[in-house]
Amino acid sequence: MAGAASSGELLDAAQRGDRAALARMLSVVERGGDEARRLGRLTHGLGTDAYAVGITGAPGSGKSTLTSALVDVVRQRGERIAVLAIDPSSPFTGGAILGDRVRMGDHALDDGVFIRSMATRGHLGGLAVAAPEAVRVLTAAGFAWVVLETVGVGQVEVEVVGQSDTTVVVVNPGWGDAVQANKAGLMEIADVFVVNKADRPGGDETVRDLERMMDMAGSRPWRPPVVRTVATSGQGAADVWQAVGEHRAHLGAGGGLDDRRRHRAAEEITRLVAARLLARARATTEGPRAAELAAAVARGDTDPWSAADELLAEPPAPA
Amino acid sequence: MAGAASSGELLDAAQRGDRAALARMLSVVERGGDEARRLGRLTHGLGTDAYAVGITGAPGSGKSTLTSALVDVVRQRGERIAVLAIDPSSPFTGGAILGDRVRMGDHALDDGVFIRSMATRGHLGGLAVAAPEAVRVLTAAGFAWVVLETVGVGQVEVEVVGQSDTTVVVVNPGWGDAVQANKAGLMEIADVFVVNKADRPGGDETVRDLERMMDMAGSRPWRPPVVRTVATSGQGAADVWQAVGEHRAHLGAGGGLDDRRRHRAAEEITRLVAARLLARARATTEGPRAAELAAAVARGDTDPWSAADELLAEPPAPA
Repeated sequence: MAGAASSGELLDAAQRGDRAALARMLSVVERGGDEARRLGRLTHGLGTDAYAVGITGAPGSGKSTLTSALVDVVRQRGERIAVLAIDPSSPFTGGAILGDRVRMGDHALDDGVFIRSMATRGHLGGLAVAAPEAVRVLTAAGFAWVVLETVGVGQVEVEVVGQSDTTVVVVNPGWGDAVQANKAGLMEIADVFVVNKADRPGGDETVRDLERMMDMAGSRPWRPPVVRTVATSGQGAADVWQAVGEHRAHLGAGGGLDDRRRHRAAEEITRLVAARLLARARATTEGPRAAELAAAVARGDTDPWSAADELLAEPPAPA
Repeated sequence: MAGAASSGELLDAAQRGDRAALARMLSVVERGGDEARRLGRLTHGLGTDAYAVGITGAPGSGKSTLTSALVDVVRQRGERIAVLAIDPSSPFTGGAILGDRVRMGDHALDDGVFIRSMATRGHLGGLAVAAPEAVRVLTAAGFAWVVLETVGVGQVEVEVVGQSDTTVVVVNPGWGDAVQANKAGLMEIADVFVVNKADRPGGDETVRDLERMMDMAGSRPWRPPVVRTVATSGQGAADVWQAVGEHRAHLGAGGGLDDRRRHRAAEEITRLVAARLLARARATTEGPRAAELAAAVARGDTDPWSAADELLAEPPAPA
């Protein structure tokens, strides 16, 4: 793919297996704007049968290793799988670099696997808009499975990944001792719990702890199974994938999958509307009067709410 | 402070040294909305002389320990200081709990120190709006210094802390080996570099590495000094505080402080305008037509951009 290819040409090439074209499409999605929008027009009706699996957990819990083991399981079944590592891109993580370098190794020569880190720099709602579009692009390119994996634990990335069709939450033995974890918050997003590094001391206790937590939560239509893994050796990965399949069957049987996808689409539309309105906000706060108001707030002569009021009372710039 | 106190009553109490009233004011700021706005009306003109110091760095770099050592330095000079730990509040960190419990210990009985974690749950732009208002509340309550410290490394929290009057970036020996750090991004936000745990192997190299990085960046009006610390013993903390003071003097002499504060105020106003418009977006995407469009996107019958277009063409709901 040399020179400036149209969205349609890129999609055609990606569907023929051109990985560079696929990578370029995902870069377009990351950047957002009009080009991403043209892509969205092309991809929305393609491959709606693909299935999105979210994988999240504390840093160091072994998410990447588990993901790699799951990729092996899927490939043994002959299905194609894409992995998107969702990266918050702060100066302390340096964005997408780490993920790509470390991960590509094992699956670099396998055309049935596509692995990519995705970072959206700065623009509000960027990740929440880009991630579902990236899933559509990958499914349009023929991947039956798309794994979304969080690199860090930022609220936005966890929310985005938690909106997958099935969300896997990875913990380690001893996690219950840490004061930090918000167990109720994890219960909200988990469809499958994985206790990774289960061969370490405290593994059984951690499984019991999770089961007890779910007993206390009372009866729900789906009780997240707790699966033990040692991801470094691949142990338990097939069980995790089976649990994902069971959750998928459960959602399919009860209409829950459609509900989830409608909810995700509604959230995506809201973010797009908000992004459009944010562009209006930036235009609104760029004029000379906005600069005067900023100086007045900095001096303590007025408060920012009153400044926002005044700017919003002006006719909004066209979006 | 029993029952429902007005914003004015809370402020009066906080200014008399009532810590519970101050804590309640900060909870109001965290929640946002009309009550926060009333507080903003009261606090904007008070205490504009207070100075905001940001402290950020990778997890485990010793930011909290350094902050505690800096608090000791400030208290030895008899000045009052407040610390806000900015927390991204994902289910894996559990929000503000950890910070408060661990930190309060050393300074719990000192009226000249106020320490608090701040988490804003979910609402877009929440942190960027809440943090500067929290600084105003603390300065209105008589704190001459406010330290903003990041708990994690999320992009938003680093940006918010990086907008302090002086920003301190904490690294450790060996940091340069890690592929993750985006050095250019750190150079952008750092006014003072601290090499903490400088007694460990590689400390001298790390200092040289930072100095070389600044040599390559060429001449700038302010070259961030590199200070060595061993925060656990307090070693170097006074040097860090002196560097902060020198940067403050530099900014004051050149008008840079006013520039920074105007820039911060402009950003704050933009976020408020955006938040107001986001509320409009949510109202716009709540009706029955919005639900139909979400279902159409989920089915692949249309793309989310076209759905957003249609919703935005409708007359926007009043903000």
